[in-house]
Amino acid sequence: MGANADKTSAEAVIEFEPEFVAGLKKVFEEMVVFNKVLGLEITKINSAEVRGRIAMKPDLVGHFSYNRIHGGVISAGLDALGGLACMAAIGARHMDEPPMQRLHRFAKLGTIDLRIDYLRPGIGDAFELQAEVLRLGSRVANTRMAFLGTDGKLLATGSAAYIVS
Amino acid sequence: MGANADKTSAEAVIEFEPEFVAGLKKVFEEMVVFNKVLGLEITKINSAEVRGRIAMKPDLVGHFSYNRIHGGVISAGLDALGGLACMAAIGARHMDEPPMQRLHRFAKLGTIDLRIDYLRPGIGDAFELQAEVLRLGSRVANTRMAFLGTDGKLLATGSAAYIVS
Amino acid sequence: MGANADKTSAEAVIEFEPEFVAGLKKVFEEMVVFNKVLGLEITKINSAEVRGRIAMKPDLVGHFSYNRIHGGVISAGLDALGGLACMAAIGARHMDEPPMQRLHRFAKLGTIDLRIDYLRPGIGDAFELQAEVLRLGSRVANTRMAFLGTDGKLLATGSAAYIVS
Amino acid sequence: MGANADKTSAEAVIEFEPEFVAGLKKVFEEMVVFNKVLGLEITKINSAEVRGRIAMKPDLVGHFSYNRIHGGVISAGLDALGGLACMAAIGARHMDEPPMQRLHRFAKLGTIDLRIDYLRPGIGDAFELQAEVLRLGSRVANTRMAFLGTDGKLLATGSAAYIVS
Repeated sequence: MGANADKTSAEAVIEFEPEFVAGLKKVFEEMVVFNKVLGLEITKINSAEVRGRIAMKPDLVGHFSYNRIHGGVISAGLDALGGLACMAAIGARHMDEPPMQRLHRFAKLGTIDLRIDYLRPGIGDAFELQAEVLRLGSRVANTRMAFLGTDGKLLATGSAAYIVS
Repeated sequence: MGANADKTSAEAVIEFEPEFVAGLKKVFEEMVVFNKVLGLEITKINSAEVRGRIAMKPDLVGHFSYNRIHGGVISAGLDALGGLACMAAIGARHMDEPPMQRLHRFAKLGTIDLRIDYLRPGIGDAFELQAEVLRLGSRVANTRMAFLGTDGKLLATGSAAYIVS
Repeated sequence: MGANADKTSAEAVIEFEPEFVAGLKKVFEEMVVFNKVLGLEITKINSAEVRGRIAMKPDLVGHFSYNRIHGGVISAGLDALGGLACMAAIGARHMDEPPMQRLHRFAKLGTIDLRIDYLRPGIGDAFELQAEVLRLGSRVANTRMAFLGTDGKLLATGSAAYIVS
Repeated sequence: MGANADKTSAEAVIEFEPEFVAGLKKVFEEMVVFNKVLGLEITKINSAEVRGRIAMKPDLVGHFSYNRIHGGVISAGLDALGGLACMAAIGARHMDEPPMQRLHRFAKLGTIDLRIDYLRPGIGDAFELQAEVLRLGSRVANTRMAFLGTDGKLLATGSAAYIVS
């Protein structure tokens, strides 16, 4: 035993070409219209990790008394970001393909299922979202996500499985 | 054994006063702003079951090629409707309270966690949402939800736990 | 719309040959050793639904004060039964294959993920387990499971996704 | 904002008295009989983290061809260890109570729900289980768990919610 180290974590982090990142941002932030409604922006993306940001606005309110963000914004945002992390991991496996060809792989991605744990009320001016791929198989990818306050406080966590081929 | 039948299912279905339903609709469809963004409307509500409806519109698109609804609309809608089912079950337990007092109980409700299973692509002009409470305890309520096409086809299912006191 | 009814529920229920059922029982109840430790027996199996039974015994105790069944027996049993429901659905799709060939498909099945909701304490002499396939795709199957008392009281529910090819 | 740092992570780690640990081990490893069937042992326990170990044995086999551990052993073990992490966090909040009184709090703990993600086949001579509490509230605790090979490879992850009062 002992020898078969986890290849995922051992792999070097791959940074993408500006063209690929720009294309991915356009698809994710604009063409996936509901992401735009959420105001979900990509703030970091490489083969190992993706991060996003949602600025609070009146449309996202769930609980009016506390100006608390709607749980659905959290679940929708984390689902989307988990998918983006898969896309980044898949993209990193196909660096031999031209950026536009890699982007087309995005269309085949689908969420199988999702779990969200709500830990603390989401109150603040903005929120950070994080996602990482725990395993990228040939058919299924598993991700873990987190939703944080700008102070780094963990507000919600997520787990999801995606069909990737 | 044998004797202790499931009280939840044995209980008679309680219908609410128009005042309570109107108040609940106002809170749920308007004051919870993000529900309004989703266009989530209550179509049926009693102590045993709640149903809602979301009409498709450009803001809800997840996959532009197929005009498919965003998975986040499904998770957000089912989370909200599961909470509404809890609210209905709680309301039914406090029919001795005036409607407005019962409505205030809504403020204390919170989602503990949520699971969504995406079964089939959400493509259509409108969607139906259903939620029922499997168990209403003194502290935790468990719900089951479904997201269907207007043809009755099951598109997604959900399970959630809520803190109710 | 309206026309494309849910094919899964519309399909006729397929009953299996005794040889296939006997083979499946041998694999499931004996060769999957941990199922034997649980005492998990198949009580019904066709293409639409599977049912099982677990008799209470000292080995399965989780809470000694109440002689309550361990939550892990519930999660393990429901995971196994959900997989069996997939196996039945897959078997029904390949009735043209000889029973033994169909049984070999069992080896390729794997749980992607699982959710269990614990509703009520599992106290009793025996328990019934139920599982149905909500969707059987070419790569992923989704199931829903229930864990009941012999009085029919719902004690726990489950949802799972399986890789099927 | 900015100021309200996460108290959970900021708190100093509390180590327990040998009497409390011995009592907890007796309850967890022996009196919860099904944990004994699993062979689940506590290898580390303090207020911040708990770890356990399961040695492979014939009773735990799920897939006979590969001598793979049954997914139910993983779900049962992670559920149990998540509960233990809650117990440790609760114990740490009541260090003013005598050890035996703190141990009685174990009886009130119950799993609300559980999610397990199976990432890689569990093949090996032994496995390590880890659990940490993400949030301990007055009524609900949220945990995250991991199931690893002895080489540190991540085989499965879990999330769970527990009722704690």
